Amino acid sequence: MTQVAVIGVGQTKFGVFPDKGMKELFHEAFQEAMADVEKGLDPKDIQEAYIGTLGTGGAQLGNFAPLMLEQVGLEHISARRVENACASSGYGFRDAVLAIRSGACRIALAGGVEKMTDLPRERNRYWLGVSGDVEWERLAGTNFPGIYAMIARRHMHEHGTTREHLAMVAVKNHRNGALNPKAQLGFEITIEQALNAPLLAHPFGLFDSCPTSDGASVAILCRGDLARGFTDKPVYVLGSGTATDHLAVYERKDITRLLAAEKAAQQAYQEAGLGPQDVDVAEVHDCFTIAEILAYEALGFAELGKGWRLLEEGATSLEGRIPVNPSGGLKSKGHPIGATGTGQIYEVVHQLRGDAVKPERQVKGATVGIAHNVGGSGGTAAVHILRIGE
Amino acid sequence: MTQVAVIGVGQTKFGVFPDKGMKELFHEAFQEAMADVEKGLDPKDIQEAYIGTLGTGGAQLGNFAPLMLEQVGLEHISARRVENACASSGYGFRDAVLAIRSGACRIALAGGVEKMTDLPRERNRYWLGVSGDVEWERLAGTNFPGIYAMIARRHMHEHGTTREHLAMVAVKNHRNGALNPKAQLGFEITIEQALNAPLLAHPFGLFDSCPTSDGASVAILCRGDLARGFTDKPVYVLGSGTATDHLAVYERKDITRLLAAEKAAQQAYQEAGLGPQDVDVAEVHDCFTIAEILAYEALGFAELGKGWRLLEEGATSLEGRIPVNPSGGLKSKGHPIGATGTGQIYEVVHQLRGDAVKPERQVKGATVGIAHNVGGSGGTAAVHILRIGE
Repeated sequence: MTQVAVIGVGQTKFGVFPDKGMKELFHEAFQEAMADVEKGLDPKDIQEAYIGTLGTGGAQLGNFAPLMLEQVGLEHISARRVENACASSGYGFRDAVLAIRSGACRIALAGGVEKMTDLPRERNRYWLGVSGDVEWERLAGTNFPGIYAMIARRHMHEHGTTREHLAMVAVKNHRNGALNPKAQLGFEITIEQALNAPLLAHPFGLFDSCPTSDGASVAILCRGDLARGFTDKPVYVLGSGTATDHLAVYERKDITRLLAAEKAAQQAYQEAGLGPQDVDVAEVHDCFTIAEILAYEALGFAELGKGWRLLEEGATSLEGRIPVNPSGGLKSKGHPIGATGTGQIYEVVHQLRGDAVKPERQVKGATVGIAHNVGGSGGTAAVHILRIGE
Repeated sequence: MTQVAVIGVGQTKFGVFPDKGMKELFHEAFQEAMADVEKGLDPKDIQEAYIGTLGTGGAQLGNFAPLMLEQVGLEHISARRVENACASSGYGFRDAVLAIRSGACRIALAGGVEKMTDLPRERNRYWLGVSGDVEWERLAGTNFPGIYAMIARRHMHEHGTTREHLAMVAVKNHRNGALNPKAQLGFEITIEQALNAPLLAHPFGLFDSCPTSDGASVAILCRGDLARGFTDKPVYVLGSGTATDHLAVYERKDITRLLAAEKAAQQAYQEAGLGPQDVDVAEVHDCFTIAEILAYEALGFAELGKGWRLLEEGATSLEGRIPVNPSGGLKSKGHPIGATGTGQIYEVVHQLRGDAVKPERQVKGATVGIAHNVGGSGGTAAVHILRIGE
């Protein structure tokens, strides 16, 4: 199989940017990614692009990909929007990998962008919510905090997970995010703050949820055998897995598992010829605190139902044996829907190259990383395994 | 390069179906495609899916692909929405081809679905229009009939194209569509009717435009070396080309050309090792009559500016040397945005297999066909060349 490597990554700060539109955000992430290609890259050599976005800013309904590309001078190349809700650019990243493996191109771009804060809060809530099953779930009055809260309560009931465990995810990720200049909520919180925060949807308080965010991210991929012409530190894509599930949780046999993520992880491990024990660092989709615990289980870091143990052991903190979300995760770094998947790739690539922005955030000696991106409440999922060096 | 073949196709009738939602339309197209796989296919063997849609019915904003797939029992597979306005499923078809060539799967599905007629006419017009450049084109008051009318007027001014030539496109495609039980406007019209129809946007009358439509289409693709296990008449994908352009026509040097379509065609011919002279039948993106003339030129059937000659010669009618839009085209068959690209593949596959629904519509002895799918006013384009037999 043709090897594929990431040779450059870029990401805007995630946050609330009333003065920046989607075009500017994408431009910023693209410029950083191009500058990140150590030995330089002529943008004309990028031949395929996969742009993830959910809402396209509310205004540009169609043909969004070429609109972004003309902002950065990539005219006339093959480009399309890939949309799988919060897993849009995770899937876009996969499709860029497949495009290179197929022989269709040598260099491809995967990226994502979202502008979530330009709508009044009530509208925004509606807008995001319609990535669940509108007919059978959304119209019954559910929303994502409610859905994930149901998942959390069932997980607590069946597996002994507690509100304290959820709070530990938030505290850990805020601690990491406080070391990330690109994080939206870059401040630390205490367990007490997490537990005593205003109620969102029981068992969730405010700190159990990620924020709504603006932002963009870009990854530039290259055929593996050409990668060292662009950088001395290529990061290879060893495994790519993607899967789907029923959008509505009522159709799932066990709501304490995200089957799409489990299947995607199995595929990615199989393709890479690696297992959970080989992973040194992980970026996972912690849109709500329970989602990080589900990710531990889907990725095989813990047995099903036992994800909370990793938190009690401190295994997933920066100093632990398998640091998870050194970026701060969606929880603290932010979650601009379409930009999240390749935003995870951005962090994993930096961690594997050993050049995470602040040394305190750097996972020491990491060589294998994993990115775990989930759409909606688990309707879609994309998992990628990367390694520094061949 | 790994060969890829189409082993089954399905398409709903295109039209106005107040009693059918997107799920039902997609289900219908899928069932027909499965039944069309001559020697049978276990749906569980479909491993990747690419679903094209623009508006997702106005309600289901995100995660649309798994929602369609669960309607047809394809649970848990890798699936994503591909959106490039009217070229959505043309691009989805390409990405399915690349997925098979990459080795990621043996069997993939590309399809599309759109429900356009569930909105009041004024809203529908707005909804569709925002696939052009919203900021610099749409907000200036333009819409697609207006944009293509500008293109047509310039083409007339520079190249001697006349309103009669435009009308000849409409008359030809309505004549073909009258032979297609799946066409939305399946009736013939005369040149006089076309020329005297109510004005839409000068030089266009009502018959210079395609209708708004509901519909769905599905193509099932397979690794070439396995194709004869599924059918004795596999149709091979010899060439795939995709490209983009500025969304806004004011940014284009020459508005009488669709550069994205020209580049996509060049790529597809190059990959196939074929030229325009090898093509026996074509389905092209005639959203407006001028667009078919632009397609003749982009595909190399005529010199730039001389597309009208083919109409005067009758070269593109069913009996001509290069029949174009035997299905009736977007003009008469209908144009349910996301379903159009794989709808063209549906017709080309039937023509190449020699089993077009009515014998009067069958292009005799066609072995090589081309599908030409354009998004917006040329912001995106996908061209595919297919051949019956290896």
